[in-house]
Amino acid sequence: MKVVIVGGVAGGATAAARIRRLNEEAEVVVFERSGYISYANCGLPYYIGDVITDSEELTLQTPESFFSRFHVDMKVRHEVLSIHPERKTVSVRNLETGEEFEEHYDKLLLSPGARPVQPEIPGVGLENLFTLRTVEDTMRIKAYIETHQPKSVVLAGGGFIGLELAENLRESGMDVTIVQRAKQLMNPFDPDMASFIHSEMRRHGVTLALGHTVEGFVEKEGGIDVLLKGEDPIHADMGILAIGVAPDAKLAGEAGIKLGIKGSIVVNERMETSIPDIYAVGDAVQIKNAVSGEEDLISLAGPANKQGRIAADNICGGNSSYSGAQGSSVIKVFDMTAATTGLNEKRAKKLGIDTDKVILSPMSHAGYYPGGKVMTMKVLFEKETNRLLGAQVVGYEGVDKRIDVLATAIHAGMKATDLKELDLAYAPPYSSAKDPVNMAGYMIENIENRYLKQWFLEDIEKLPRDGSVTLLDVRTEGEYAGGHLEGFRNIPVDVLREHLDEIEKRKPVYVICQSGLRSYVAARILTGNGYDAYNFSGGFRFYEAVMQDRCLVEKASACGMDR
Amino acid sequence: MKVVIVGGVAGGATAAARIRRLNEEAEVVVFERSGYISYANCGLPYYIGDVITDSEELTLQTPESFFSRFHVDMKVRHEVLSIHPERKTVSVRNLETGEEFEEHYDKLLLSPGARPVQPEIPGVGLENLFTLRTVEDTMRIKAYIETHQPKSVVLAGGGFIGLELAENLRESGMDVTIVQRAKQLMNPFDPDMASFIHSEMRRHGVTLALGHTVEGFVEKEGGIDVLLKGEDPIHADMGILAIGVAPDAKLAGEAGIKLGIKGSIVVNERMETSIPDIYAVGDAVQIKNAVSGEEDLISLAGPANKQGRIAADNICGGNSSYSGAQGSSVIKVFDMTAATTGLNEKRAKKLGIDTDKVILSPMSHAGYYPGGKVMTMKVLFEKETNRLLGAQVVGYEGVDKRIDVLATAIHAGMKATDLKELDLAYAPPYSSAKDPVNMAGYMIENIENRYLKQWFLEDIEKLPRDGSVTLLDVRTEGEYAGGHLEGFRNIPVDVLREHLDEIEKRKPVYVICQSGLRSYVAARILTGNGYDAYNFSGGFRFYEAVMQDRCLVEKASACGMDR
Repeated sequence: MKVVIVGGVAGGATAAARIRRLNEEAEVVVFERSGYISYANCGLPYYIGDVITDSEELTLQTPESFFSRFHVDMKVRHEVLSIHPERKTVSVRNLETGEEFEEHYDKLLLSPGARPVQPEIPGVGLENLFTLRTVEDTMRIKAYIETHQPKSVVLAGGGFIGLELAENLRESGMDVTIVQRAKQLMNPFDPDMASFIHSEMRRHGVTLALGHTVEGFVEKEGGIDVLLKGEDPIHADMGILAIGVAPDAKLAGEAGIKLGIKGSIVVNERMETSIPDIYAVGDAVQIKNAVSGEEDLISLAGPANKQGRIAADNICGGNSSYSGAQGSSVIKVFDMTAATTGLNEKRAKKLGIDTDKVILSPMSHAGYYPGGKVMTMKVLFEKETNRLLGAQVVGYEGVDKRIDVLATAIHAGMKATDLKELDLAYAPPYSSAKDPVNMAGYMIENIENRYLKQWFLEDIEKLPRDGSVTLLDVRTEGEYAGGHLEGFRNIPVDVLREHLDEIEKRKPVYVICQSGLRSYVAARILTGNGYDAYNFSGGFRFYEAVMQDRCLVEKASACGMDR
Repeated sequence: MKVVIVGGVAGGATAAARIRRLNEEAEVVVFERSGYISYANCGLPYYIGDVITDSEELTLQTPESFFSRFHVDMKVRHEVLSIHPERKTVSVRNLETGEEFEEHYDKLLLSPGARPVQPEIPGVGLENLFTLRTVEDTMRIKAYIETHQPKSVVLAGGGFIGLELAENLRESGMDVTIVQRAKQLMNPFDPDMASFIHSEMRRHGVTLALGHTVEGFVEKEGGIDVLLKGEDPIHADMGILAIGVAPDAKLAGEAGIKLGIKGSIVVNERMETSIPDIYAVGDAVQIKNAVSGEEDLISLAGPANKQGRIAADNICGGNSSYSGAQGSSVIKVFDMTAATTGLNEKRAKKLGIDTDKVILSPMSHAGYYPGGKVMTMKVLFEKETNRLLGAQVVGYEGVDKRIDVLATAIHAGMKATDLKELDLAYAPPYSSAKDPVNMAGYMIENIENRYLKQWFLEDIEKLPRDGSVTLLDVRTEGEYAGGHLEGFRNIPVDVLREHLDEIEKRKPVYVICQSGLRSYVAARILTGNGYDAYNFSGGFRFYEAVMQDRCLVEKASACGMDR
């Protein structure tokens, strides 16, 4: 059996090694367009920022090391130009020599990855405007920085690569601006949760220009002007385009392989394309979103590696299938960690799922043990079925742990209320006796049992201010004085029972506290005394973080906060 | 409704608050023997070690704060002497005044906790021999240390409290010795995994006296002599007994409530005892081990809190049930973290479960990103059903995360092979594209598919040394020279294919490398070439760690290692 693999990173390299482990006789040839195989794609921004100092660390394997261990012929700087399914060959160009040749395959695996999106606007191609995808791109950016010592950079795009680059360039002393068309960074997050990412970026001196459309680039004074729609241009010494990636499926399309959303390669669960004996994996393929059931694109290393292994199994005569991905991801944002899994609220609503949510602010570990930090957790579930849909967590410690626990619960098809039963490991340096994930489960159970009725940030504008409802802030007097919602009166929870006679029983009561815990207790006191009470999800802490960010993004002065 | 609760910590305090949240009218009285309620049991060792510096941090609530928020009458320094189910009362003594009285209940909740085991040996009761369970115990130990400035301490017992105390006292500069009858610390771990805990303790200067039976204590030279069976006594300036806890169920037993293993209180899933309207929760109750299905005792804060909430729900007319615990736990051991969930190998074998296992040494995060550390992970599963049974992880970073993911997978009833599919969040600072938990799943799938056949540490003595099998070390020459197993010849994996003619085909080949990865590749090369090959689980790294520890524990000089 002869296996030809197009692309020697992530999925392609994983598949090559696995094929060899399963079949000592197969001939395996990998064609990789760049000069490197199996490189650490996700490490590239950190090499630019000198967090990773040795470039050899980035290339996990060399063609030589891969050959000695796996007897796989890794041909770098070789571009596959076309596929000829009818005669089972591919046409290949050696990019060093220019030589072209045809190579036969019994099984073909496509792992071409994705390409950085290059918008069709003026100035793309300027020599101080870069993209980052390959080791070569990385070297180019690093060399430019070393030679030209730029003091400022504009990053167009606020996704994973944009943020990681922003952090690394900022840490190395540059002035960094991120321009993004959306009014939030990191689209996998809902706007409310993204607020926390924004403020961490700002806290570290990164300038955010959100809600701006880039219309082009022009060279100016040795630097670059980023032209914005309806705004003054932003000037910087260099620019980096990081507005996303698109499946690199041109080869597949030209061969007549069926393509899916955004021109991605359609595969079945066995990672087989529409043409027999041709498999595809990684960023270029369309996969099933395991939570929504939709067709989806997920450009992440984890799925690519899993798919590579599954394709290898099937190429070697096995029967492995890919169950889909749920988009679990995590990013370091300076001192903060932001992580997500499953569907976010935007997406769930777009899909027409009747979605409910809890927002909580638990400590990363027991409050009495030093170093604990508050995190913000949002857990989404389907109202009727109680099915877990997704979660987002931002904070400074233990964030990746909670998202992985939630990702596991979602994968296992657990109900949202089941989270309360999880027997998680507790000791003061690591968690609380009621882990944040358990807490989310408790809250969801309280909603299910109608012990907890909630109101949300998005309800604030709609709250009647005509006296037909009672607006109640149950924090301490000091907290209230430090900032509160307009129209809310203050009765601290610990004296609420003594002041019930001041609250009209026939009016609904909307309660808020700092994090949502005391207001829950207050709402229960009120309910137990015959009131119809609603608890503000996330607390004033959440409200304040989101609104402050919104003011900054909108550049509006009115924040609705009464200080 | 009047609810009386015996014990105002963990389960009792949780239940009191929850009852109030569910029922604004109920009268709730809590009798707590000590002077403190709702205190941070798990924080006490850290207060002794000045990691937690403010004693108020330990007492999460005071009777006053609890009353203002929950209108619960928290009577500290009140001991319940007896229960009279026939007239639904308890007899109570006010420990301050000596006054005794009878208190009526409609519902009674017992949350008495556990007592430190006091062995019946001479010297227990000496003034410089302490136990640690309550805030008062903590204050006593701290006061003794401040007054007497002891330079050395012997801890009898190597469980959670023993180890946490050892760390804290060692960090404050004392000479610390742990004496333990078993030949390992931390019984929830298997002896092989405990080796890593031992070496971390030793690395930080803690003396371990394992496999020694304490026969008594005598005062000597202002300090204490710990008398050992068949050994010289150990002298220290003070001693602490931390040999475990036992259910404090005397009160329940005297009232005629049905008792279970080790005199614990028998409860059903609703946390009801054998007597109507009497509930029990926490360390004093017998629970169901959710993995083995056996009756079990688990003295941990997580289960106690969960049970308290469930009892409260049922006391208030709800219908909540406790699904059991799986013993998830974690401990900080100086710079190391050790965590476990589910059954360990000792227990699984005792239960007659046909158990298989994988042992792996993955990095906590991507190797190319700075700061990654190797962890050791052991995952147990049932051979026939592939059911996940339990896991143990020791290492320096990301250990608690992986155990919580595994705990969630076990709770969800996932198959061991399903671990490979988990879509966990990856970025270089947090994990690898193939997370350690995914890796465990891959290995287990390889076993299931017969791609991977293993041999284990416990097989080493049984390996025939008569030439009937081939013993093969596939590490580099340098690694081999640095230490290897007797009788193993060295052929590095990367040149193995070229040396196959030197290995007899009819003999089984037992392969080892450093961590188990290269030997797996080697075993696959051999299998693909017609050999019967077995991979050493855990690698030389694991072998060396366990054997070095075993030598130290046994004080034997022969280690079976050829250097």
